[in-house]
Parts: sequence; C-alpha cells; structure tokens
Amino acid sequence: MNQPVSQPDDADLGLLAPVWAGTAVARRTSDRALAQDLLDVERTWLQVCSTAGLVDLGAEGVGGRGDAGGDGADGAGGAGGAAGAGSPWDASAYDLVSIAQRSAGGGNPLIPLLGDLRSALRAAGLDAASRGVHLGATSQDIIDTALMVMAHEVVELLLADLDRALAALATLAERHRDTPCIARSLGQHALPTTFGLRVAQWRAGLLAATHGLRRVGGSLPLQWGGAAGTLAGLELRTAPAGLDAFALSDDLAQRLGLAASLPWHTRRQTVTGLGFALADVVAAAGKIATDIAFATRPEVGELVEPSAPGRGGSSAMPHKRNPVLSIMIRSAALDAPAQVATLLTAAGLADHERPDGAWHAEWPSLRALLRLAGGVTPKLAELCSGLAVDETALRRNLEHSGAAVVTERIMAVVAPLVPATEGRTGKAAVQAAVDESLSGGTDLATALRALVPASALDDAALDDLLQPTRYLGLAPQLTDRLLSQENS
Amino acid sequence: MNQPVSQPDDADLGLLAPVWAGTAVARRTSDRALAQDLLDVERTWLQVCSTAGLVDLGAEGVGGRGDAGGDGADGAGGAGGAAGAGSPWDASAYDLVSIAQRSAGGGNPLIPLLGDLRSALRAAGLDAASRGVHLGATSQDIIDTALMVMAHEVVELLLADLDRALAALATLAERHRDTPCIARSLGQHALPTTFGLRVAQWRAGLLAATHGLRRVGGSLPLQWGGAAGTLAGLELRTAPAGLDAFALSDDLAQRLGLAASLPWHTRRQTVTGLGFALADVVAAAGKIATDIAFATRPEVGELVEPSAPGRGGSSAMPHKRNPVLSIMIRSAALDAPAQVATLLTAAGLADHERPDGAWHAEWPSLRALLRLAGGVTPKLAELCSGLAVDETALRRNLEHSGAAVVTERIMAVVAPLVPATEGRTGKAAVQAAVDESLSGGTDLATALRALVPASALDDAALDDLLQPTRYLGLAPQLTDRLLSQENS
Amino acid sequence: MNQPVSQPDDADLGLLAPVWAGTAVARRTSDRALAQDLLDVERTWLQVCSTAGLVDLGAEGVGGRGDAGGDGADGAGGAGGAAGAGSPWDASAYDLVSIAQRSAGGGNPLIPLLGDLRSALRAAGLDAASRGVHLGATSQDIIDTALMVMAHEVVELLLADLDRALAALATLAERHRDTPCIARSLGQHALPTTFGLRVAQWRAGLLAATHGLRRVGGSLPLQWGGAAGTLAGLELRTAPAGLDAFALSDDLAQRLGLAASLPWHTRRQTVTGLGFALADVVAAAGKIATDIAFATRPEVGELVEPSAPGRGGSSAMPHKRNPVLSIMIRSAALDAPAQVATLLTAAGLADHERPDGAWHAEWPSLRALLRLAGGVTPKLAELCSGLAVDETALRRNLEHSGAAVVTERIMAVVAPLVPATEGRTGKAAVQAAVDESLSGGTDLATALRALVPASALDDAALDDLLQPTRYLGLAPQLTDRLLSQENS
Amino acid sequence: MNQPVSQPDDADLGLLAPVWAGTAVARRTSDRALAQDLLDVERTWLQVCSTAGLVDLGAEGVGGRGDAGGDGADGAGGAGGAAGAGSPWDASAYDLVSIAQRSAGGGNPLIPLLGDLRSALRAAGLDAASRGVHLGATSQDIIDTALMVMAHEVVELLLADLDRALAALATLAERHRDTPCIARSLGQHALPTTFGLRVAQWRAGLLAATHGLRRVGGSLPLQWGGAAGTLAGLELRTAPAGLDAFALSDDLAQRLGLAASLPWHTRRQTVTGLGFALADVVAAAGKIATDIAFATRPEVGELVEPSAPGRGGSSAMPHKRNPVLSIMIRSAALDAPAQVATLLTAAGLADHERPDGAWHAEWPSLRALLRLAGGVTPKLAELCSGLAVDETALRRNLEHSGAAVVTERIMAVVAPLVPATEGRTGKAAVQAAVDESLSGGTDLATALRALVPASALDDAALDDLLQPTRYLGLAPQLTDRLLSQENS
Repeated sequence: MNQPVSQPDDADLGLLAPVWAGTAVARRTSDRALAQDLLDVERTWLQVCSTAGLVDLGAEGVGGRGDAGGDGADGAGGAGGAAGAGSPWDASAYDLVSIAQRSAGGGNPLIPLLGDLRSALRAAGLDAASRGVHLGATSQDIIDTALMVMAHEVVELLLADLDRALAALATLAERHRDTPCIARSLGQHALPTTFGLRVAQWRAGLLAATHGLRRVGGSLPLQWGGAAGTLAGLELRTAPAGLDAFALSDDLAQRLGLAASLPWHTRRQTVTGLGFALADVVAAAGKIATDIAFATRPEVGELVEPSAPGRGGSSAMPHKRNPVLSIMIRSAALDAPAQVATLLTAAGLADHERPDGAWHAEWPSLRALLRLAGGVTPKLAELCSGLAVDETALRRNLEHSGAAVVTERIMAVVAPLVPATEGRTGKAAVQAAVDESLSGGTDLATALRALVPASALDDAALDDLLQPTRYLGLAPQLTDRLLSQENS
Repeated sequence: MNQPVSQPDDADLGLLAPVWAGTAVARRTSDRALAQDLLDVERTWLQVCSTAGLVDLGAEGVGGRGDAGGDGADGAGGAGGAAGAGSPWDASAYDLVSIAQRSAGGGNPLIPLLGDLRSALRAAGLDAASRGVHLGATSQDIIDTALMVMAHEVVELLLADLDRALAALATLAERHRDTPCIARSLGQHALPTTFGLRVAQWRAGLLAATHGLRRVGGSLPLQWGGAAGTLAGLELRTAPAGLDAFALSDDLAQRLGLAASLPWHTRRQTVTGLGFALADVVAAAGKIATDIAFATRPEVGELVEPSAPGRGGSSAMPHKRNPVLSIMIRSAALDAPAQVATLLTAAGLADHERPDGAWHAEWPSLRALLRLAGGVTPKLAELCSGLAVDETALRRNLEHSGAAVVTERIMAVVAPLVPATEGRTGKAAVQAAVDESLSGGTDLATALRALVPASALDDAALDDLLQPTRYLGLAPQLTDRLLSQENS
Repeated sequence: MNQPVSQPDDADLGLLAPVWAGTAVARRTSDRALAQDLLDVERTWLQVCSTAGLVDLGAEGVGGRGDAGGDGADGAGGAGGAAGAGSPWDASAYDLVSIAQRSAGGGNPLIPLLGDLRSALRAAGLDAASRGVHLGATSQDIIDTALMVMAHEVVELLLADLDRALAALATLAERHRDTPCIARSLGQHALPTTFGLRVAQWRAGLLAATHGLRRVGGSLPLQWGGAAGTLAGLELRTAPAGLDAFALSDDLAQRLGLAASLPWHTRRQTVTGLGFALADVVAAAGKIATDIAFATRPEVGELVEPSAPGRGGSSAMPHKRNPVLSIMIRSAALDAPAQVATLLTAAGLADHERPDGAWHAEWPSLRALLRLAGGVTPKLAELCSGLAVDETALRRNLEHSGAAVVTERIMAVVAPLVPATEGRTGKAAVQAAVDESLSGGTDLATALRALVPASALDDAALDDLLQPTRYLGLAPQLTDRLLSQENS
Repeated sequence: MNQPVSQPDDADLGLLAPVWAGTAVARRTSDRALAQDLLDVERTWLQVCSTAGLVDLGAEGVGGRGDAGGDGADGAGGAGGAAGAGSPWDASAYDLVSIAQRSAGGGNPLIPLLGDLRSALRAAGLDAASRGVHLGATSQDIIDTALMVMAHEVVELLLADLDRALAALATLAERHRDTPCIARSLGQHALPTTFGLRVAQWRAGLLAATHGLRRVGGSLPLQWGGAAGTLAGLELRTAPAGLDAFALSDDLAQRLGLAASLPWHTRRQTVTGLGFALADVVAAAGKIATDIAFATRPEVGELVEPSAPGRGGSSAMPHKRNPVLSIMIRSAALDAPAQVATLLTAAGLADHERPDGAWHAEWPSLRALLRLAGGVTPKLAELCSGLAVDETALRRNLEHSGAAVVTERIMAVVAPLVPATEGRTGKAAVQAAVDESLSGGTDLATALRALVPASALDDAALDDLLQPTRYLGLAPQLTDRLLSQENS
C-alpha cells in the first residue's frame, strides 16, 4: 500500500452506463468511496473501543483520516495521528486494484484491505491502532455496515433529487390541471383527459416510491455480530471489563448515522427491502420516461425534453434531437428489475451464519441499484423541471379521433332523447349514427341533429356534447386530490 | 354460458407445482375464484349504484350470488334474484374455458365474462341489472380491483400461517436458547453458537417479512377510474343526479374490504409492493428451508423434518426420507424472484393510461407469487412446528473441529499469560501451539499447559477455555432480544 | 383413481393468460396432457422391457392406451389390454387434482400417479404390468423424459406457426421492398428506409430464433439413469439376462421420438437450452409486435392489425380497435425473460445427483415458456399474414421531418459544389442553410439554389437530392439479401 | 483529451466482485479496453476506406496506434502517423472519465469519444484522417462492433480456461472411474455411484456449455449499417466511385476478425445468444462448485480445494479454510441469470431501427456476463486441476447409511430366493427384514441369512449383495462413455 494508485487498466468508469456516469451517486459508490466507508467503519469502531477503554491507544490516538472531505472531529481522535493525504485512514493511500485482485483469496475485499491498513498504521507509527483495529469484528460486519453507510448517504442524495422532481411535477400538474388531451389505453385513443391529471399520476407514483425509499433509508441498520453473530469476540473483552457489548455496538451505529440493530447477517430483508425501494423509484421514473419518450416522437409532438449543450445529438444525424433523458431513464428501468431478482434469490438461499456465495452475489446488484437510482433521479428532476408542453399538439391529437372519443357520452345523453321509431330504439339509432360517422359517412353532428328534435337538445348543447374538451370527467378534481398528497 | 363446465383439457391443476397444489391459496386463486371475484366486483358496484339511485333495478333487485359460500347479505339485494347454483352471479355457471379462449379478443377476461354475465342476467329475467351492470367502469377497474380482493383474502390466509410459524419458531428458539451448536460461515465451521439463536434469527427474518406483508395487505386499494381514469363515465350520471362520484367509489371500496383510493391504473407501486412483500416472505422461508435441508443431510443429521403419511418417499428408494417440506419451500424461493422482476419491468414500462402489454404481463406473475407464498406458508408452519432437533448431532458436529473453533478465545485469554522468551512473544507461542494442534501434532491442551504456569491459569480454567460449549458469546442474550420483538 | 374428474376448483384455465389461453400448445401442455406423457413413458418402457424379455406380461400384454387419440400400435402391446376410456393408460381415468395434492408428499407428481397406475392396472387385471412397470426407473427419469416428449411435440407446433409467419413476412417484405418510410432511431426520425427492409429484418430475427428452436427441438434427449444415474436398477436385471441396458434405453428413446442420450439429470443444459430457444422466439416476436403496436397508434397510423370477430374490443369504448395481437405478444415478451433466469439459476445450483429444490423450480418455468411461445407463434403468424400497410401514412410520416432526414446527403453532395467565399467553406455555407431551414427560416431548396450555380447542379438534380424517397441507400438490396437466407 | 488520466474517483475496480477482479477478462473488458476497441473499429474502417480510395489520407496516413500492444501492421497505415503513447488511436490518451460523463448527452460513449478523436487527430496533424473517420457510420455500428470484437477475444480467453478445466475433469474422472461413493438425491443418500461418474457428468455439462460458447464465439458478426441500417451514408460515396459497399463492410469484418454480416441493429439474437452461451458456462461451473462446496463441508469432508497463498482465509478465524473458489463461482451463478433476463427483455422490446432504452440496457448486462464468465473459468480450471479427493471420506459417507442404499438390489435378488410361507410372499419377508434393520433391529445380513437357504445363496454371495461398493450399476461404463465425448 501507500503506492501510487494504479492506472485503472481494469476500471469501469461508466463508459457503458451513460445513465449514471458522472453523477454524484456514481462518485459516492465508487470503489474509492467504498474503501473509505470500510476504513471509516474500522476507524469509528476503534474510536468506540478506545473511548470505552477496551483498546489503549496511548498517546498515538486513532490517527486522522486526513482527507480534504473529512470533518474536523475525525482528527480529534489522536494527538499524533498521521494527517494529510497518505493517512492510513484515507482510502486514496491504498492500491485498490491490488486489493481487488487479492479479494479473491478470501472472497471479500475487507481481508486484504485490513491487512494493508494494519501495515499502514504500523508504518505511520500507530502500533496500538494496528493491534486494536477490527476488535471482535468480522469482515461481514464491516462490509455490510459500510454498504449501509454508503446506502444511507446515497438515499439522501436521491431524496433531494426526488423532492425536486416531485415539486416540478406538482407545478406542471397544477399548470395543466385543465389542459385537455387524449388519454391512451393499449396505445389507442380512449377518452379525453387532462395533461394535468396525467402528470399528477406520474407524481403520485413517484411519491409512493419516494415514501418507500424514505422509510427504508431512515432505518438502515448497523450489522455487528462478530465471526458467527454471537458477539463472542467482543464479549470476551467487554465481560471482564464490565462493559455492555450491546451499548458499544449501539454507540457505533449512532456515530455512523445508522439505526442500532441486532445482527442481521443471516436475514437479508434489510438488503432486499433497500433494493426494492430503489427499484421502485427507478420503475416510477421509468413510467414517466416511457410516457415522455412517446410524446416526443415526431408524429406525436406533445412534449419536448429540456435542451442542454451537448445533449440529444447523434453521431450521424445532426438534425436529430433525441429524448435522451427519457431514454437513459428507460434503460435503467429495464436493468433494475433483474438486480432485485438477484437480491431476492440470494436472500432465499442464504445458508446458515454466512452464505457460501449468496452473500457475495448481493454486492454488485445492490451497488447497481444504487447507481441506477442515482443516475435516474437527477435526470428525472431535470426532465420534469424543464419539460416543454406543446398545447397545440395536445389539442391536435385530442381531435384526431374526432367525436369517437366522446361516444360514451353521446350514447348516455343523446339516446334517451331520440324517439323510438319502427322497432328501432333511440339507442340503436344513435349507435347507427356513430358507426356511420366512424366509417367516414355522414358526420356525427349532422346525423344526431336529424335524430333529436331541437326542443330536446338545442344546437349549442349538441355542439357541446361533441367537443372532446368538454368531456373531461373529474380529471381536474382528481388532479387536485392527487396533488394534495403530502410530499413526505 | 350456463353450459356445463368444460372438461379441463387445458387446465393447470398444479401437477408441476407440488409446492402449492392443493393448498387453500391455490383454491382461492383458481380461475373459478378469480371469476367469482370479477363477478362480485361487478355485483357490488351494481348494488352501490342501485343504492345511490343511479340504477333502477325495480322489483328485480340485483339477484343473489347463490353459492353456498355467499353470505346472507348477498341475497338481500334483490327480492326476485335468481338464487342457487346457476345464478348469474355464481362463477360456476360460466364456461371459463370458453371465456379464457375469448379473452384473447380484447386482451383480458373481463370482456367476454361481462358479455356472458349480461346474457345470463337477461336469461334470468334480470333485464335492469343487465343494463345497469358495469356502469361507468372499464375492464381494468374490475380486474385490478378483483385481484386486490383476491390478494386481500390470500394475505389473510398467509398471515394466519405465518403467525403459526412465528409462534413455533419462538417456542423452538426458547427451548434451545442455550443449546450449543456450531455456526457455519461460507459452509465451514466458524465458532460455537446456540441453536436457539439460529432459530431466533430465522424468526426475526420471517417476522420482518410478515410485517411487510401485513402492512401491504392492510391497505390494498380499490382501482376505480373508468375508461381513462377520469371517472367521466360515472360523472356523466352522478352530476345530473347531484351525487358525488368519489363517495360512490369509496362505498364500493368499503363493501369490498379494500382501502378507498384515487385511481392507480397508471402507477403500479400497488402491484410491485404486493409482489415484493410476497417474495420477501418466500425468501425468508427459503432461508429457513435452506438451513434445514442442509441439517437433515445424513452426514449432518442435526434436524429431522416432521413426518406425515405419504411424505418424503421416493419412487425408487424405499429407505429414503426426503426433507420434502424444505425442498418445496426452496423451489418456491428459486421461482419467486423472477416473478418480482417481471412486475417491476412492467411497472417501469407502463405506457400512458393503460399499457400495451405491461399490464397484462403482471397478472400471471402476481398470481404466481400469491400461490408460491400460499404454498410456502402452510408448509413452513408445519415444518417449524414439528421440527425434531437431534442434540447429540449438534454436539457431535460442534466438537468435530475441536479446539479450532475456540482459537479466537485462546489467543485473547491465554497469550497475555504466557511469558515472553528469547524474542518470542506470548502471542507467537500460543499461535505456534494452535498451528501445531490443527496440523495434528501435540494436542492444544497439553501444549498450552506447558506454556502457562498453573498459577496464572489452573487446570479447570484451561479446560474451560478449550470447551466449545463455553464460548457462546452473547448467543442466549441475543436470542432473548430477538424474541422480544413483537409478532405484529 | 377411476373417479370422475374433479371439478376444477383449483384449476388455472388461462383466464389470466390471454396470450396462450385456448391455443393448441395450451392444450398440449395441460396437466392432463402431462399426465398422459408420464403414462406414455411408463407404458413405452414397459413395452421395451417386455419386448426384451425383462418383464413377462404373459397373455395380459401391456394393455391399450384406450384414448381416441392413441395410434393403433398402442393396442398391439397386449392381447387382453383394457381398451377404451378408463384404460389404466389413459390420463382421463385419473383424479389429477388429487394427484397434484399428493405430489407434495414426495415433491413430484410421478410418485402418486405411479401408485394410482399400479392400482388401476391391478383393477384391470393387469397384474404383471402392475409389477413390471417402472422397472429400474426413478421419478426423475419419467418426469424429465415426459417433459422432453411434451416439448418435442410443442416445438413441432411452434415451427409450423413460425414457418407461416416467416413466409408471410417474406411476402410482405418483397411487396414493400421499395416502399419508402422513415427509419426511427431512439424513437426519432432518422433517415429514409423502406418498409420492406424493416420487415426483412423482422423476418431475419425470427428466422435466427427459429433456427435455434429447430436445432434444440430436433435433439431433445431421453433422460434415463435410474435412482442415482448409474442404471443400477436396470443393470441388475439386464446383466443376468445378457442384455445391454444402453440398448434398451436407446430403444425407449427411439419409440418416444427423442434422441438417445446418456443421463443428464445433473447437468441441465438440456433445459436451459430449450428455455432459451423458446425465449428467443418470444423476443423475436416481441420486437415485431413492439414495432407494430407503435405503428398502429392513431398518430402514426402506418399499420393496422388484421381484424377478426370479437377482437380488439373494449368493455367501455366501442370505437376502439386495439392492436391486441401485438399487445398479447408483448405481454409474453415481458414475461418470458424472467422464466429463463429461473432455469439458469436452477441449473447453476443443481446439487449432486438430484437437486433439493432446483429441479422442482424448473418445471413451472419451462412450461410457462412452452405456453408463452405457444401463445405467441399462432398470433404472430396471423398478425404477419393479415397486416395492412397504409402507404399513405408511411409517406406522410416520411415527409413529416422534411429535408432534415436527407441532411446527410445534402452535406455530402452539395457542399463540394459550393464555392468558398470570404473565409466560409462550402460546407459551412450548406450547414448554415440547413440550420436555417430546420429552424423554420428560408426553405432549404431556395437556400441551396442560391448557393450552387445551376451549371454545377441543375434544378432537377437539386430537387432529387431533397426527396426523402430518393435517399434509400441500399435498403432494397439489403432486403433482397436478407430474404435470400434460407428458412431452414 | 490528451490529458493525464483522471484519478479514478468514480471507478469500479472490482472491489465488490472478487469473482472477476484482477482476471485477464476483467482487463480485456475494462473501459480502457473498450475505448481501445471503439478506436480500433474507427481506425480499421478508416484504413478500409483509405485502401478503397474513398478517403484520401495523402502522406499523413492513418497514423499508428502507438501502444505497446499494437501489432506492427498498425503503424503501416501511415508514414507520418503519430506513434507512441499519446497517439490519437491509443485509448490511454483520452480522459475516459470525462467521456463517460459526456456520454449522457447522446446516450452513448461513442459520440464524445469521436469528438475527442477528431480533435486529437487534428492536433496530431492528421487532418485528413479527422475528416475521413467514421465515414457513413453511426454510433451503433461502432459500439455493437466493438463489443463483438471484445467478446470475440474474451471468448478466446474463456475457451482456453475451459479446455484446461475440461482436461482436468477428464483426468479426474478417469482416475476415479471405479471409486465408489454415495449418490445424493434431494440431499439424501440414494444409491452408490462412483466419484468418476460424478466428475464425468460435471465435465459433460461443462462440455455442452463450452460447445455452445465456441459456436457462438466463432461467428460473432460485424454490425455495419449506417444511421438507419440502409448503408445510405456509405452508398452515397461508393456508388459514384463504382465501389461495392458490401465488399467494404466485409473487408472490415475480416480485418476485425468478425464474421461478415448484414446489419443486425434491430434484431438482437446476436446479443441474447452470446449472453446465453456465457450464462450457460457460468451455470455449468456453478453446478460443479455447488457440489464441491458441499463436499468440502467439515461433516462431509470428501473434497478439499487446492490451496494457494492468501486464499481461503478469514478476517476473524485463522483456523478456517474456506472453499473460496467454489464460493466465488457460486456467486457468479447467482448473478448471471438475471443479466440474461435483461438481455432478453431488451431484445423483445427493441423498438424500430434503434431502441429508445433497450439497446442501452444491454451494455452493462453483456459486460457483466463477460466478466462473470471471465472470473469463473480460470477459477474453475484451477479448482478442477487441484482438487484433492479424500477417498476415506468418500468410503465413510458411502457406508453411513449401511445396507439401506442397496435395498433395491436386495429386493430384486434375494426376494425370489425366499420360500413363501403361510401367506407371506418372499418379497414381503425381505421387506420386513429391511424395515427392521433400518429401524435399528436385527441387522440385515443376519435376517436375510435366516430367510434364504445357503444352497440358494452362499455366505459370500450374500455378503457381496450387502456391499454398497458392489452395487455401482454401470457407473464406470457411463464414465467411459461420457469421457469419450469430444472436447471440441
């Protein structure tokens, strides 16, 4: 360790994942960030043990984390701590490529990292820390906990984006509360609705997923159980000292911003629940993006994605404006579900006190879900904030199918007003008029005028009945009710 | 309709699904039961409309459901309702094979069922009901709502089984709170633990999944929005009558035992959330079954599944006793995750007001999850209630690896008592003794006796240190804490 | 057994699977059909053993299958065989609901079916058959082999449909070899292409999947290994009789229409390969259906699905014509992938000589894939055969984006002809003209006319350059080449 | 570009993927390697165009790739080509982190890379190359083709490992052709088999998967179609020059080591087929690893993984030897299936000429499958080559269930020799003896001795019948036959 970082010959930098490359969550879930989380858990536990008197660090102290991003309190642990870049507690001091390679030896990255950490502590003169680190812990404690710390911070990032997206959607829905458009079922024109209601439903779906994520993210637990989940290695030291092992692990949880918890190494609902909440956010965003991607098609033209320098271009066709935010989100919606399946399979086959493969299979899927959500949420926030609505196109498409989309209303209102004649009910007469107009014959207004006496339905009323924009049902009221659901 | 039920030439009776065949949930989710749910939703809505005065059924009334299982209130809707088998509201009166075949025409089973229902109502002299049924509704309203009614009742069945399983696990964990056994990590012997703690962790995982299911099951919502989710077809009738369309749909929800809800046809978190809760139950059960299946292997022999007539046999090997409950549960744990992926994919691609394929893809996956959970929970309850524990085998396996499993403790306690000699620390001396014993040399007790003066560690204390059963950490206390978590 | 078939209270009749309900494959994969396959394998094996002299059936013979669909040779096995409905070899004689329920006892349906078969044989006076049946076999032999027999026949059904679909697509592609339309990338208008090329690509994808299915379907193997895959139970009888156990199993394979094979109970590439071939067919169909579903949208209007009585309707909107064939196919394309994942997971975790759950998890997924493919292929054949193409709409959409879609060509051809002026290259000048026309300014023809001297490019040539229909690249030639790929 | 490579703050270096971190395939599939593939495709195409005279590079030439790994021919393209590190054709000259970030703009990494490449070419004085690069191509051409180039080389690496694994398994199976062991079905002791047969079956499964991979890997095709798959942008230049566009693309395929092909941008069987072949290899390896992981459990002890420095350790338990090769392989077997599902979903929803999300979703899943296979195969080769077999343990476990595992044989051979007495058949008498011995009563040998006269079965013959090791069926012969299957 303490070598210069290897050239990332093996690195995945996001080249095949435009949906998340370059996002804050990508950075927060990088291997560097993960290594820092692993080191932070070890270091915080050493602080807990030192504070409790289980480990005597003497004048050395814990040593400072030394990175620019560290808070001041970090350094307080030790008077003589190695500070600055190159601190043993700073992930940038480690050759992560080498650690990743050596992780195959024990099946996890903590084992080689811990070895390098101990060497680095000794090299920095922190011998007591080198001996005292990882007291009573096992690699699963550190890895599970570090992933929860990572997830906890990622969820914060996601929630900020989601709140932006939700607010933008609320604004958009309010603005278009009464803007008529065509509702589509099975891809076909169904009835009129309002664009505001469509958007309010987008928001409601995203809101439900956000609630789920907030609930999960607010109670991500510490995993702390020692080699077999009995806390034996810890109790060995706490019992003679009259200390409460549970109190120490609760202290650790609090310092790390996690929920105190009994060990959950063998029951993985923590992981499946987190994965599901993330996938649900991606799915809710995917639904919105699916609607938008369709609406931006040239034949439809109802919506335009916000533009930005360098976005939406093509390597071959300079005239194109691709709805690339929606496309990226959709790619995530296609990828995330399978990752959840992997988490569930692993949970259902988790053998005894630490599974022989199922635990390991969780890691890439969980990180993939964090990153997919992390790619989706800022794009969604931007998409919803800058979406341009072409009301002319909405109107044009609404009118495309003519009176067909108000047939339901015509049948209900007009039929009772048509006198029955020669064995044909009023309803049958209206149906015949509708059928003829749909097949291109006499237009519906003319046909109905001939059927109903003006005394029963004057021209203005008949015209009103034929207007798609006048058959919105309770769309505006539904919009209001959906928007009244609290954001959090 | 009103034909005799077709021979089930096309039927799936569960021959390839021993995990759920013949269970109460299989029956509750059969196509017959689904058809009954669809009919019940239509009938209840007709009652709501009739009560509100939107539909005038005259003396005819709604007609009785007529099946043995119907409650008395059903019949109260109509004085002259056709009662008994063959009632238009009784699913057994319909040729479901034919309806299934005709469902391809419109892409869903409600369309042909509704046609047959109307004919049956007319044939039974219930003309007003025939005209009034399905008022303002769309097939998605009926199908989504019927699936929620089905799910609601299935969840009740599941929770009853889960409560039995949880109670049995609590009893088992208490009984074995102090029964030592070997903990296994990555399949290898790790440290001693107690069987009670293992079981308490099983229960805790199942409890978390049960909580999730209860939460979801307690708020399954009505879907009611009409053709495009605007309630237009309903508002057309309620507005002139001065009625509140929302109040009517809330009345429907209440009568069906569902949560009142704004339409959710376009946001499928309702379905993904239900699917996930079901899959989480299956995964929690799968983890337990995975542990048990291993423990019943002849070389291990720690556990024996409860026996029952006809269970565990082989077509070729009469001596075999297969852990068939665990095996069935494991098969479900392998099947369920993919079904959740399908639900999530469908949710993320749900186009506009009704998706062109994604909605339809949900149905078989959702039913598969209901059935898998419905197969798993009674088997799990029986398995946990009748599980036989062979304490001799637990002890034998615990002792299999000898003092190796207490090495952690030896190093911590003995090393400080060994005097350093000629450049070898006490720790190094103990490590050498451990290594030699592990490789079959001098046994550890003898070696340690030679290293530590009896004044520092007497024979009894040394012997105690070497007993695996004396190194249980906080396993009993963890068991107590896990068991103190409330069942609901 | 020999009871009347139970009312299908637990049955799945396809109500939630409109994509496959009522199809030939649904019938061929029903539980009844599966039971018949299981019985047929047992019966054929008894015939093999009888022919080889391993089992002495005396005058009784094997007994006839007795069903209407049986071939004449079936009856030849036994002089006194019980014929007609109710024959012990006829699946309709068994209470499959009861067998499904009892399958939980041993974890598979063969065990109770075999018990009932033996009883039925005895009841029919076929005592020797009752004793001789299942000689040296194990339930996995029968189930795996029966599923291969089922799959073999299903593949035949699928290939017939696929050949129809492929032929229809070839005809359609030829007809529209030169019909210009807009190519869409990322949903946006890209360049002109021809509708024939689009269809030829549909066909090429379907052809590749068909080839894969034909390859797999033509070599589906017998599974025959006895209880542990050693053929011990068989060798026990063949060795004393001087018979070759392998020859007997090869004889069985030939009689069942399967490929002779060494046992594959522990290596499941047979199953994953079949599953993948089926899923690939569904995916190839899904791609076609996805394109068609979009093209039938009212705003696009390029294609119309073939109509049929009762198809495409809506329970609420009589004017709608839903592209229900495409929608059903798409629902299958969303469902199938997860089933393949289950097969692969099961294969990768298949423990020892028969897995404890993974084997069982295969069954429903394999059948689901057979049924999904069986639902998709006839719909696809019908869809491709009756697809109506609206050339006017194709032209309208092609012209929608104006000259933008020929920008690539303009830049390449015109720019070199424009004299450079005052530090602006010809390319820059043309780009400026294009940009202005795209933003609604001077139309491109006028602008280019001003840039290029008529001597370099006359009016006709310039006009030609601006026609989207004149920029088809090699679309017709690609169509020819794709269509020249052999069907099989 | 031409900046120093960014610190990999966002990089995934494999820390959470011990199964593939540090392998040759990880390196071959890194973002650096991918970027090089993208550049190589562009450069080779430029060479093709230059050779054909479509692009006039003048004295500049193409420019050398300049990396150490490049072959000599690379430099031949251009007299004045910039050579050495920093060549525009060398991926290490690019800031891939920046490119990854900018890939969100167009939804793929080729667009920003191409921009940077053009700038770099100009900066290197290769103006003609800058103008001539990417002629008539589209980003999908480059990306799909580059992924095929990558896959082609990865498959070569995999096949080399697989051949090693297959050879090791063949040797192992031969060596243990006659080594008796217990066969396990549903985890329970079934019948005797030989360890050689088990291993021969492992090999047969792996061989089938290897055949599939070799078939797929040998025909990975070029994708070349231009912006809309019509080759229009190319034909624009070839037609005036009298060149054949197809001949040029075939030349490109040949130079890249790919199969010549018509465009397949819209039909993704290429990708699903590759994905499945990879997943099938992982599943075949997973099955082997699952058997081995169980066999290394302390209670079983039949197998020991090969040891290596730093492998199998634990952070908390120095005595443990974890079967980490098996565990890593199993983790891949749990992860791969879901990636295949994503590929299939994407294929089935691939809209028109380039999908709006489905294409993008393929990339991470395809690379994950390459890496998972690339992690699995060297581990499998090592595992199979160094696996230690404990024949004592095999024997001990075989004898664990005593004569129970030969019951089948006893019933078949002894029963006919037992005289019927007082209404009890010989078979019933033997069954009673077996039952009693299984329940711990009179041992089977004694009981049978009492039933059968020595004249019918002498002591030696009876003893032989009771030996598990004498009831191996055709296990050795099956081993021979399985091993006779050709490696390729």
